[in-house]
Parts: sequence; C-alpha cells; structure tokens
Amino acid sequence: MTTTEANQVTPQAAVDSAEPADHAHGVHGYHKQKDEHLKRLRRIEGQIRGLQRMVDEDVYCIDILTQVSASTKALQSFALQLLEEHLRHCVADAAAHGGDLDAKVEEATKAIGRMLRT
Amino acid sequence: MTTTEANQVTPQAAVDSAEPADHAHGVHGYHKQKDEHLKRLRRIEGQIRGLQRMVDEDVYCIDILTQVSASTKALQSFALQLLEEHLRHCVADAAAHGGDLDAKVEEATKAIGRMLRT
Amino acid sequence: MTTTEANQVTPQAAVDSAEPADHAHGVHGYHKQKDEHLKRLRRIEGQIRGLQRMVDEDVYCIDILTQVSASTKALQSFALQLLEEHLRHCVADAAAHGGDLDAKVEEATKAIGRMLRT
Amino acid sequence: MTTTEANQVTPQAAVDSAEPADHAHGVHGYHKQKDEHLKRLRRIEGQIRGLQRMVDEDVYCIDILTQVSASTKALQSFALQLLEEHLRHCVADAAAHGGDLDAKVEEATKAIGRMLRT
Repeated sequence: MTTTEANQVTPQAAVDSAEPADHAHGVHGYHKQKDEHLKRLRRIEGQIRGLQRMVDEDVYCIDILTQVSASTKALQSFALQLLEEHLRHCVADAAAHGGDLDAKVEEATKAIGRMLRT
Repeated sequence: MTTTEANQVTPQAAVDSAEPADHAHGVHGYHKQKDEHLKRLRRIEGQIRGLQRMVDEDVYCIDILTQVSASTKALQSFALQLLEEHLRHCVADAAAHGGDLDAKVEEATKAIGRMLRT
Repeated sequence: MTTTEANQVTPQAAVDSAEPADHAHGVHGYHKQKDEHLKRLRRIEGQIRGLQRMVDEDVYCIDILTQVSASTKALQSFALQLLEEHLRHCVADAAAHGGDLDAKVEEATKAIGRMLRT
Repeated sequence: MTTTEANQVTPQAAVDSAEPADHAHGVHGYHKQKDEHLKRLRRIEGQIRGLQRMVDEDVYCIDILTQVSASTKALQSFALQLLEEHLRHCVADAAAHGGDLDAKVEEATKAIGRMLRT
C-alpha cells in the first residue's frame, strides 16, 4: 500500500525537469492527463497485486480469470485513452504543420495492430 | 523493488494454512504451479510500475502503447495457463467422477468469452 | 442473394453421407447443432457480402468499421459455441474413457490462444 | 464457387455511378484502395463459405476453430487498413482544414475500442 507511494517520490522533480523532452516526436499529447494516467496505472498495479493474493490464497481459478479479464480491460482502456490523446495532438500536429503525417499514421496504426493482437 | 518482496511475506503461512480450501469448487488445478504463477504476476506488476515511470518521464506515447501491449499479452498468457490447468483438473474431474460437467464447461466457456471480449 | 441458397442445396446429401467420419478424433461434439451452426455461418457470410456492398457504395469508413466489428463478434461467438461443445464432448470423453486427456486439453488451450491473439 | 463471381457483376456500374457520395463525412480515404478492399472481402467471404463446408463435412472442431481464427484475423487486418486510410485522409483533413478534429478523433477512437472488444 505505502509501497505505491514510494514509487511516486519524484513527480515534482519530473515536472521540474520537464525539459523540452524528445521533440523529435513532437508535442506529447498526454502531459495534461498525466495525473489521471498515473492514478489509473496505480489502480491496475493494485489489481495485479490482488491477483497475487488470490493465487496465494488458492482462490477458485474461474474467479481469478474474471479478475484477469478486468485488469486486461483496464489496460486496454488506458491504452485507448493514450491513443486518443496521441491522435489529437501528435498526428493532428503533423497534419497541420506539415510534419511527416504518413509516418505518424503508419506508426499509430501499427500500435493499434499490436493492441488488437493481444 | 523491495516492495515486491514485501508482498510475499506470507507465502509459507499461506501454504501452511492451506486447509481443504473451497472444495465446493473441486480440486484447484493450479496449486503446484503456484510459485510459477506468482513469479509471472510479480513480473507483470513490475511492468505496470514501469509504465508509471514511462508516463512520469514523458516517454513517447507510442512506446508506452507498445509496453501496454506487452503487459496485456503477459496477462493473457497467464490466463491461458490458468485455464489449461483448470480444464485439466476441474473439468476433467467433473467428467471422470460424475460432477456437474455441463455446468463446469459452461462456466469455463463464459470465462473464455470474457477473455475474448477484452 | 440467390447464391446463398445455392450453397445449401446439399445439406441432406451431406447428412446422408455422414459416414463415421474421423473417429481418431473421437465423437465430434457439434453434430446436433450442425443446422444452427450453418445458419449462423450463412448469416456471417451475408454480413461479409454486406461489407462488400458498403465498400462498393463508398459508405463512410467508420460505419464500415462498425460492421466489421459486428462480423468479428459473430465469428468469435460461433467459435465459442463450437469450443463449448468440444469441451463438453471431446475433452470430457477423453477424461471419462481414459483418452489422452492432457493432449486434448493442450490442443483446446492452443486453439483458445489463437482465438485470443486475433 | 461461381457464386463469388456473380457478386461482382456490378463493379463497373458502381464506379460509374460514383457520385460525390456523402461529403458531409469529408473525403473518404479508401476510394483508391476500393478494388483491393473488395478482393480482400471476397477472399474472406470464401473463407466463411469454407467454414460452412467444414461444418457440413463434420471436420474436427479444432480445425474449424483454426479456420475461424484465420477469418477473424483477416477481418481485423482489413479493418486496420481501412482505419489507416481513414486517419490519413479524414482525420488529417479535419486537422489541416479546420474541421471538427476532436469529434473525428473521438469517433475513430470509439471505432478502435469496438474492434478491441471483439
């Protein structure tokens, strides 16, 4: 429980040091939603830890599988939100300011393909 | 890092207290693979924590999505192994010893359906 | 349109010639549901033909994608039903009559894995 | 077999009548790939008809499931290509010419979500 907090000791530092980052990639779309993303991921981390408890306590397989499906769904939902922001910012940016739109779209489509195949 | 170990302080206790568990559900198939399962889940937990670091450090969205796909795949693979053991033990048990096979199969199929829909 | 019917002229003939089939595989579980399965598949075939019409008539991409998702869902649902019957009959049979249960379960799990990865 | 051809009698007519279509939706991205898309869909239609034959001939369930997975994968792959063209044209168009980009991106993300959930 307190371990989760331990992982977050640096958010302020991270924000402070938010140097122009990798702008070869253009503006990252998810900056503003950062806190929401981290909250989601911590919740998923908690679900995974819950799965460990379930295995440890010999919970019935089917109930574990149900929980695995919930975690997978949560991860997919996180990915979808990230993707939406990416399309809104990075891809749109390339389209508006003459970036390499085709490469951006191909890259995004490949990422979607990887999501579909899992 | 050390936090992961903190979550495992009780495995021995858990094994000791492994009372007949919920035998309404029949023999749980995954007992022997317990250590392997826990190891897998801890690795997935590490991946989720890695995702938090990536978000925190403003890593490029597409690279985060790739890591999400890897975690989802790892979860699905864990689910598949659990399901295989379940079929081998619980379902087969019902078939061999006159359990309610139809109910077991329906239950397993529903779990697979939930896995597919995520 | 009439082509769909053309594909169904032989169901009776097929039933008549239903020789013992490949019993190395044991009793096929889906025999009784055959008509239902064929009906489902013909409906899916109709959906795919509908997709061709949509592409042909320049329907908006997103609407086509929605229809593709419906077809994929219908295929997955068909697969799930087939799998349920398979588990009920073939796998259970192996468990009850001393067949190679482990091989059957491994085979079914691999099929589920292929379904998940698509 | 010949039924597949029967479905294609009108492509020329369809092209001829390719009036401006629904431009409320903006330029459809997939026009140029139309022939390729139709070819893909006809191949998938053939796979679905192959599935009917397999069920009709009492082919082993697992082999049918393998074929279902192949068809699902083909449908997903078709969807991905459609989506890529959509992003390249419609979404990019909205970004470049001041269309309702946010609505377009949200719409595309929802479509991806539907693909993921099947």
